[in-house]
Amino acid sequence: MNTPEVLKNSSARLDVDLDNIINNYLLLAGVAPHADCAAVVKANAYGLGMDQVAPAIYHNTNCNIFFVANLVEAVNLRSLLPDAVIYVFNGLFADQVDTYLAHNIRPIINDLSQVELWSGRTEPCAVHFDTGINRLGLSELETDKFLNSFNSLNLSLILSHLVSAEQADNETNKIQLEKFTKISEELNDIPASLANSAGIYLGEGYHFDMLRPGIMLYGGNPGLPTRPAGLKDTATLKARILQIRDLPPGMSVGYGAKWTAQKPTRVALLNVGYADGTFKTSDGNVHIFISGAYAPVIGKVSMDMIAADITAGEFDGVTVTDFAEILGSNITLEMVSKVSTLGQYELLTGIGQRYDKNYNLGTYA
Amino acid sequence: MNTPEVLKNSSARLDVDLDNIINNYLLLAGVAPHADCAAVVKANAYGLGMDQVAPAIYHNTNCNIFFVANLVEAVNLRSLLPDAVIYVFNGLFADQVDTYLAHNIRPIINDLSQVELWSGRTEPCAVHFDTGINRLGLSELETDKFLNSFNSLNLSLILSHLVSAEQADNETNKIQLEKFTKISEELNDIPASLANSAGIYLGEGYHFDMLRPGIMLYGGNPGLPTRPAGLKDTATLKARILQIRDLPPGMSVGYGAKWTAQKPTRVALLNVGYADGTFKTSDGNVHIFISGAYAPVIGKVSMDMIAADITAGEFDGVTVTDFAEILGSNITLEMVSKVSTLGQYELLTGIGQRYDKNYNLGTYA
Repeated sequence: MNTPEVLKNSSARLDVDLDNIINNYLLLAGVAPHADCAAVVKANAYGLGMDQVAPAIYHNTNCNIFFVANLVEAVNLRSLLPDAVIYVFNGLFADQVDTYLAHNIRPIINDLSQVELWSGRTEPCAVHFDTGINRLGLSELETDKFLNSFNSLNLSLILSHLVSAEQADNETNKIQLEKFTKISEELNDIPASLANSAGIYLGEGYHFDMLRPGIMLYGGNPGLPTRPAGLKDTATLKARILQIRDLPPGMSVGYGAKWTAQKPTRVALLNVGYADGTFKTSDGNVHIFISGAYAPVIGKVSMDMIAADITAGEFDGVTVTDFAEILGSNITLEMVSKVSTLGQYELLTGIGQRYDKNYNLGTYA
Repeated sequence: MNTPEVLKNSSARLDVDLDNIINNYLLLAGVAPHADCAAVVKANAYGLGMDQVAPAIYHNTNCNIFFVANLVEAVNLRSLLPDAVIYVFNGLFADQVDTYLAHNIRPIINDLSQVELWSGRTEPCAVHFDTGINRLGLSELETDKFLNSFNSLNLSLILSHLVSAEQADNETNKIQLEKFTKISEELNDIPASLANSAGIYLGEGYHFDMLRPGIMLYGGNPGLPTRPAGLKDTATLKARILQIRDLPPGMSVGYGAKWTAQKPTRVALLNVGYADGTFKTSDGNVHIFISGAYAPVIGKVSMDMIAADITAGEFDGVTVTDFAEILGSNITLEMVSKVSTLGQYELLTGIGQRYDKNYNLGTYA
C-alpha cells in the first residue's frame, strides 16, 4: 500500500519551525515596539513556503501587513489571508490595475506613470521613493515633482530601500536616512518605512512607522557582525542514507573521479544533490551532521546524490535509511554560505522542490 | 478582472519547446537505431516540468521507458503515464516494497540486501552493477556473489553508470566497458544499458540494448568537445522590464553599491533575481538579450530583480513591460555556464518556481 509515510521516507526532508519564525518576528518587532512590524514573504517566503509561513505569522502575532515581489505572489497570498494588507514591490502596470483592485492588493508605486494609473482611486497604495539603490522607486527628480504637485492618491505607506544596512558605519545609510526623513516630513501624516532586517539594528532613527524584515524572520543573518541574541534557525534539511560502501585505497567516488580514497574509507551515499539546491557549487569543505558528528562530503555532487566520508569511529552506529542533517542547527546557513559561492539568501531561496516539507507549530498555535 | 493573461505578465516566462525535446530524443535514439532509447526525467525533467515533458515524449515517440531518481517521482510519473515502464535509480528499501508493487514501478536494485527484498517476486526489476563510480550499485564483490548464486529475480534490465563518458579518450571508459561487458555476457538474455547522453557518443560498443539520455534531451551538452549537429535548445527564460532609469555618472545600482555609472547610463530593471535560479553567482559577464542585442547585467543580483545597461543605441526602442531573453537560443546554457559557478545541469535544475510556464508542442502533436 502506498502510505504517505512511505513516500516521505523516499524524499529528503525540509522541516520548517514556524514557532521559530514567530519567535524571530517577535524579536524583531520588539526592537522597535512603537513601530508596526510587517513581514516580507516574497519568493515563497524565502523558499520555506509562503502558504504555511504567512498564515502562521498572521494568526499568531499582531502582524497584518505583508510584502511580496509580484502580483502573482500577492494573489496567492490573498487566497490565504483574506483580511491582511498586502503590498507588491514590483509596482503597477496598466494591464494589472483591475487585478490589484479585484483582490484588494496595494501596489507600491515606483514612478510617475504609475502614479497616474492609480490617481483618483480611493483604494490605498504605497509609494517607493528611491534614496540611492536605483532599483525601482521615484528618482530624485520624480520625487520633487511628486511632492510639489497635487496627487490624488490614498497613500497608506511611503517607503525606501537601504543599500548597505548591514554595515552600520557605511556613510550611505546616513545619506539615505537624511533623504528619506525629508520626504517623510513633507508627507508627515503618511506612515513611513525604511528598515529591512539589517536596518532594524541601525537604531531608532531608522525605524519610522513600520519595519519590513525578511531574511531574519527565517533565521538568516544579513551580514551583521554579531548574530542578534535570540534569533533562531528555522529550516532543517535532512537527507536519507541510500547506501554505505567500504572502499579500499585507490577507489574513486562520483562523476569525473574527483575524489579518490587514500586509505580504507567508509562512504555513505545520500539522497540529495544539486537539484535539491543547497549543494550547488559547494564541492569541498562541506559536511553533513549525523550521529553527533560532522562527516565531510566527498567527490563531485550529483544531481540527486552526495557522498560523505563516515569512516571515523563516531559513525559506527550509522546505518542505511538513517537521516543526516545537511542544514540546520548544526550545519547553519552561515556555515554553509562560507564554503559555498552562494550566500544565505541564495541558499534559502534555492531550496529545491523535492523535499518532503514538514511544518512545526506548537508553542504559538 | 483577474485574467490569466494579466497574471502571466506579472511573472517572468519559461517557455519549454516540447517539439525540440522530441527532436533531441529522436536524434539521440537515431545514433543507435538497434537499441531502445529510454528517457531520464528525474529532478522534474531536469527542471523543465516532468508533467509536460514525459507525456510529450511518450505520446510522440516510441519511448515507453523512463528513469527517475526516487519513488515519489515515480508515483507522480505513474499517474501521468499508466502504461509506461518506470525505473527508480535510488533503489529499494523495506518500507517501500508495497508502494513499488502497488504502482507497478520497477526498482533498480543496488545491493544484495535489496536483492533479498525483491527475491521470488514475479514483478520485473533492474540491477545496477557498479563498475567504478562507487555511487550505488553492486560492488565487485557483491557482483561476483550475485552472478555465482541463484537469484530468483525477474530481471528486465541490468545497468551501470559511466564516470567520465564526456571524455572520449579517458581510460576509465574502457575499463568500465570491459567490466560491464563481462557482466552482460554472464547475463546474456537480460537487456543491458550503459550509455548516458555522453556515452551514446562513445560508439556502438557502449550502446548495448538501451540508451539512457538525460541532459541532452533538454538541449544541454554534457561536456562533449563538439555539440552534436541537430541538438536543439529547449528552454527559454524571459524577464519583463519593470522600469527604465537614466543615471548620471557616479550613481550606483543595487545592494552594496557594487556598480557605479562611469558615464550617463540607461538602466533597465527586470523581474528576475537569484530566487529564480539562473542568476545565482553570476555577477559579472552576464547579459540579457533584447531588441536584437546583448545588454550587460550590472550591479548585485537581487532576490527578485536584476539591472541591465541598455545605454547603447540598439536599445533605443526598448520600453517598460518588454520581455528580455535571459536564457535561450541567444543566451545559451553553454554561454551562461561559462560565466557562472553553476554548470549546465545546475542551471537547468535550478530554474525557479515563479516562472509562468508555457509549453509548445506543434510539429509532433
